[in-house]
Amino acid sequence: MSVKVAVAGASGYAGGELLRLLSGHPEVEIGALTAGGNAGTALGAHHPHLVPLAGRILVETTAETLAGHDVVFLALPHGQSAGIAEQLGEDVTVIDCGADFRLTEAEPWVEFYGGEHAGSWPYGLPELPGQRDKLRGSNRVAVPGCYPTVSTLALLPAVQNGVVDPGQLVVVAVSGTSGAGKAPKPHLLGAEVMGSASAYGVGGTHRHTPEIEQNLTPYAEQPVSVSFTPVLVPMSRGILATCSAPVADGTDLATLRQAYEDAYRNEPFVHLLPEGQWPQTQATLGANTVQLQVTLDQRTGRAVIVAAMDNLTKGTAGGAVQCMNLATGLDETLALPLIGVAP
Amino acid sequence: MSVKVAVAGASGYAGGELLRLLSGHPEVEIGALTAGGNAGTALGAHHPHLVPLAGRILVETTAETLAGHDVVFLALPHGQSAGIAEQLGEDVTVIDCGADFRLTEAEPWVEFYGGEHAGSWPYGLPELPGQRDKLRGSNRVAVPGCYPTVSTLALLPAVQNGVVDPGQLVVVAVSGTSGAGKAPKPHLLGAEVMGSASAYGVGGTHRHTPEIEQNLTPYAEQPVSVSFTPVLVPMSRGILATCSAPVADGTDLATLRQAYEDAYRNEPFVHLLPEGQWPQTQATLGANTVQLQVTLDQRTGRAVIVAAMDNLTKGTAGGAVQCMNLATGLDETLALPLIGVAP
Amino acid sequence: MSVKVAVAGASGYAGGELLRLLSGHPEVEIGALTAGGNAGTALGAHHPHLVPLAGRILVETTAETLAGHDVVFLALPHGQSAGIAEQLGEDVTVIDCGADFRLTEAEPWVEFYGGEHAGSWPYGLPELPGQRDKLRGSNRVAVPGCYPTVSTLALLPAVQNGVVDPGQLVVVAVSGTSGAGKAPKPHLLGAEVMGSASAYGVGGTHRHTPEIEQNLTPYAEQPVSVSFTPVLVPMSRGILATCSAPVADGTDLATLRQAYEDAYRNEPFVHLLPEGQWPQTQATLGANTVQLQVTLDQRTGRAVIVAAMDNLTKGTAGGAVQCMNLATGLDETLALPLIGVAP
Amino acid sequence: MSVKVAVAGASGYAGGELLRLLSGHPEVEIGALTAGGNAGTALGAHHPHLVPLAGRILVETTAETLAGHDVVFLALPHGQSAGIAEQLGEDVTVIDCGADFRLTEAEPWVEFYGGEHAGSWPYGLPELPGQRDKLRGSNRVAVPGCYPTVSTLALLPAVQNGVVDPGQLVVVAVSGTSGAGKAPKPHLLGAEVMGSASAYGVGGTHRHTPEIEQNLTPYAEQPVSVSFTPVLVPMSRGILATCSAPVADGTDLATLRQAYEDAYRNEPFVHLLPEGQWPQTQATLGANTVQLQVTLDQRTGRAVIVAAMDNLTKGTAGGAVQCMNLATGLDETLALPLIGVAP
Repeated sequence: MSVKVAVAGASGYAGGELLRLLSGHPEVEIGALTAGGNAGTALGAHHPHLVPLAGRILVETTAETLAGHDVVFLALPHGQSAGIAEQLGEDVTVIDCGADFRLTEAEPWVEFYGGEHAGSWPYGLPELPGQRDKLRGSNRVAVPGCYPTVSTLALLPAVQNGVVDPGQLVVVAVSGTSGAGKAPKPHLLGAEVMGSASAYGVGGTHRHTPEIEQNLTPYAEQPVSVSFTPVLVPMSRGILATCSAPVADGTDLATLRQAYEDAYRNEPFVHLLPEGQWPQTQATLGANTVQLQVTLDQRTGRAVIVAAMDNLTKGTAGGAVQCMNLATGLDETLALPLIGVAP
Repeated sequence: MSVKVAVAGASGYAGGELLRLLSGHPEVEIGALTAGGNAGTALGAHHPHLVPLAGRILVETTAETLAGHDVVFLALPHGQSAGIAEQLGEDVTVIDCGADFRLTEAEPWVEFYGGEHAGSWPYGLPELPGQRDKLRGSNRVAVPGCYPTVSTLALLPAVQNGVVDPGQLVVVAVSGTSGAGKAPKPHLLGAEVMGSASAYGVGGTHRHTPEIEQNLTPYAEQPVSVSFTPVLVPMSRGILATCSAPVADGTDLATLRQAYEDAYRNEPFVHLLPEGQWPQTQATLGANTVQLQVTLDQRTGRAVIVAAMDNLTKGTAGGAVQCMNLATGLDETLALPLIGVAP
Repeated sequence: MSVKVAVAGASGYAGGELLRLLSGHPEVEIGALTAGGNAGTALGAHHPHLVPLAGRILVETTAETLAGHDVVFLALPHGQSAGIAEQLGEDVTVIDCGADFRLTEAEPWVEFYGGEHAGSWPYGLPELPGQRDKLRGSNRVAVPGCYPTVSTLALLPAVQNGVVDPGQLVVVAVSGTSGAGKAPKPHLLGAEVMGSASAYGVGGTHRHTPEIEQNLTPYAEQPVSVSFTPVLVPMSRGILATCSAPVADGTDLATLRQAYEDAYRNEPFVHLLPEGQWPQTQATLGANTVQLQVTLDQRTGRAVIVAAMDNLTKGTAGGAVQCMNLATGLDETLALPLIGVAP
Repeated sequence: MSVKVAVAGASGYAGGELLRLLSGHPEVEIGALTAGGNAGTALGAHHPHLVPLAGRILVETTAETLAGHDVVFLALPHGQSAGIAEQLGEDVTVIDCGADFRLTEAEPWVEFYGGEHAGSWPYGLPELPGQRDKLRGSNRVAVPGCYPTVSTLALLPAVQNGVVDPGQLVVVAVSGTSGAGKAPKPHLLGAEVMGSASAYGVGGTHRHTPEIEQNLTPYAEQPVSVSFTPVLVPMSRGILATCSAPVADGTDLATLRQAYEDAYRNEPFVHLLPEGQWPQTQATLGANTVQLQVTLDQRTGRAVIVAAMDNLTKGTAGGAVQCMNLATGLDETLALPLIGVAP
């Protein structure tokens, strides 16, 4: 079997990471690579690391250039996926790395993104209970945001087992700067970023906030509330999310830990570390893995969960390939590295 | 007037930063520079940036080498200050950058540091209400830890004004690696640190936790509880603390903000940024400043305060010099830069 | 005495560094701060580290806004200085941090910069033999480029003493990315820069090449030829230049070293390190210093000189303030730090 | 077919990178993992990125623990390979990542390493003319040093074709800090390394110098002389080598470029970039590739070649696996990524 794929938005970071992974996929043939302003240039000018594809010329992102593929990955700026997706037939599997179809409700869409809500597609986080089956064979997938992926996986076992108060969740997630994309802005310049840490989207204004709450709500016995603060730090890739919440009365560390062991025992890409070992983002660089550790702060009665992930791999392109594997009936783990590049 | 100072532990990071600042102090004469294993070597071998002092030879840290100075700064590993301090007379002003005399109670000392509690000295955070007067003329000062300095300053106005619940404080503080000192350990190697973020001391086990609680408790109407998580990120200097707590009923953003404006209007080194501007550590590099911003997350009902500071300057050596200025009757701000080195 | 200064281009990196230094200058009053597209905004929005000036509003760069100052610093994009300079009277001291007036000959200007050659001004490198006197009282100064400053200082003693072949000079200089300025470009994004090193302007095409040759030529007995390659590395500030050339027959290390000792014995800002100690850029961060070391490679017969400098301080703004001090009759070293911020 | 391999020195950086690559090798079974002081601990404590092997326990490095494998990789500190290698039989293929058997002559060994010369093994750089055949089926391989790999590949085509003067080669190579290994030393601490660049082994004293000369000498018409300076910069991995030499009379850019095209047209891992595109280390991160560009500086008459490579992959562990593939009769490219992890 061979799956012919196109990547729309191939010159950006998500596009580049998709192609890094897809180049090693044994069942994939890489077809059209499209771009906006970079159409007409060679892929290698934007992604010199993609050696075998460096000579490929980027074409315009249109329904025509994307036609004739089994799978189309959309790695476009937010708001551009809906327009192109409606021109692609039902026989094409569309995997959207953008935000357009992630939120099920119109209200948070309007509040956080503005404009009209395009609707929602099956949500590409197979680790959510029951979600894996919904993704199998689906011809549309909305790949989660990077922060929601890691935050949801970090909090879900505790929320689902009722061992924490879901109304008092606090997430502070430090992130590398590739998550902000390749469009040049002054605050993302190397000289600004190196040697500096800064918070942004503080006070629940980051667009990923409602997505995290949407993910956890079905599994919580009470309303979910997440105080989410992202912090930019001097690295290219990686997210380290520090999550905490008050534990329910009588919860001890063993119970808390057991919730995580049970939840992820059979997950190929989510790993609870041995006791006493805390995650570091470097260990997940370029891999499709999430590494977790959990503890109970006896003084404050809060569970603290720390999770590490590569925002471009499991957080975007790896998650997308994982969804493609499920959607097209392939082994879910194909072409997805377990091992990060460290140091 | 000229104050003759000695620096014990001059080859470490705190010692180096003390000497950087003291070299520019108009009222200070730099006397003995002492070290442990590095005694006998030139200061410039350890701190090539200290150009005017590079040829000075380090001597052993003893009561004899430290004698004959008006002020002795101790920048020693935790647990070593008490022994040397008791050999220094009451006529010498001793400024301890270590932890030995920070905690007023023996119990948390034993729990977090182990061994016998040496006692406590006037706490060197002049921005605490009333503390400035206690430091004037004092012959002993315990300089605060870096995380407690920034966390306390970030949370105090909200706690003191009763606008947040002090029993549910959450602090996640990212830090550069100089805070871990200069003793070489594998996890602090450049190759481990660059491109990686990692949490440590998770679950309330970091030694600075009880110090933060001690600082806030006198100003809170209810018991104080701080969930504190430090995160190591790839930079040499700087701490960015993201602090949050549920606000009291009826608290609005204006009230919250007013608490910070009132608290720091006249403080020379603590600055609330203009609305909408969030702190970045780079702006405080090498300066004795803390930059703050505060907001109210309407969805979750939490106040979120973000504070940036240089862990070696205001967080250690700058704070120490500020205390020395007060203790010796000098202008509190002498030799302390307001302007950071950026980008 | 008080010198009233204006800074044109205050929102850029050179402008910010000028203001950091000038804020601490005891004889300077800071007047107009001007900008192009950023006119009308507060300085603090661009340079939050400039605490005492953060509320100052940037005005348009025009002859009118720059009028009424004793000294005008131009920190403008290359090619913009000439136009504004000709509108400023002879009674104003103009210190140009741009390239417009650095080259004495029209031919290399046309080849490397293009367009018409605006002429040349006294060259602001006081460490060149005899140059200090030419700068005293001058009302026009062309501040050198960052690479020419460090490369010239590294090579001059060897060239001037005839101990190396000036026709075979090789310079490879690694640099932080602030030297490329604050205009956002994709290849300067943090995600591109961190974890990566790359050469540019290879093959003698970098604009600083003819400036280095121009500086050395008057002191060489034979034609000067410099193979210059700049390399971008992941740091905000700092240049480390590795320079080499074949030594003249019979030259030994002692002779070579003596040339450097003699040249810089009395220079306040250029320091030959003790034997065996090699420069690191961190030691010069934020300081107006150049640190040098020299050796003789016996196998190859080449002298190797390594020099470290902060590109924004001695390489741009610090050099400019040094020139202003000379031009206005002040002590040359005023407001110029000798001590870097490390680690 | 399945090749059973052991890795001696598995807890170090070279060992970790070997295991990252070998884990994905379709013909390899991973046997014993040995260590010195870390014996008895889990691999995951040192290399949390090696997820599938994290639970494996390190055993002592002895002839017994290494017995029973088809291939033994030695990733030991320099000087330790010879002792263990002589205890391994001729039927075992030994791939040494250390320096012990790289130099063919005793004299430079004694000068640069000291102690007795252990002899030499077939040199593991298949890209040297004729070398690939010598490595096929060999039961001993000395893997080249990282700097010699990239420097040799960068200079060889020019030297071999006589288009440059081999007696005036200059190499300045910037490197990430993982090349210095995992043994903690103060100057390799993150706080020292970040934000700083520094040269070391200046003046031809770095141990890789004679190895580069040894590699080029057989292909040069005149004596080879390399002025080599390594520069440490703030990144974990990657080397960017800037190499230059005077071109022979009458050499033009086309001739120069042709030499490189001819040399590497069929090499799987060495790539001349399209004209105008210069290498960046990020593009080779985690890949077994070398990316090259070449130009001719018309002003100085020097050829300038810039090459990028990952010091741990092609520079150490990838090169070692490439040699193992040849030595054991497998496809040379098995398990060796062509695509780097960027950004």
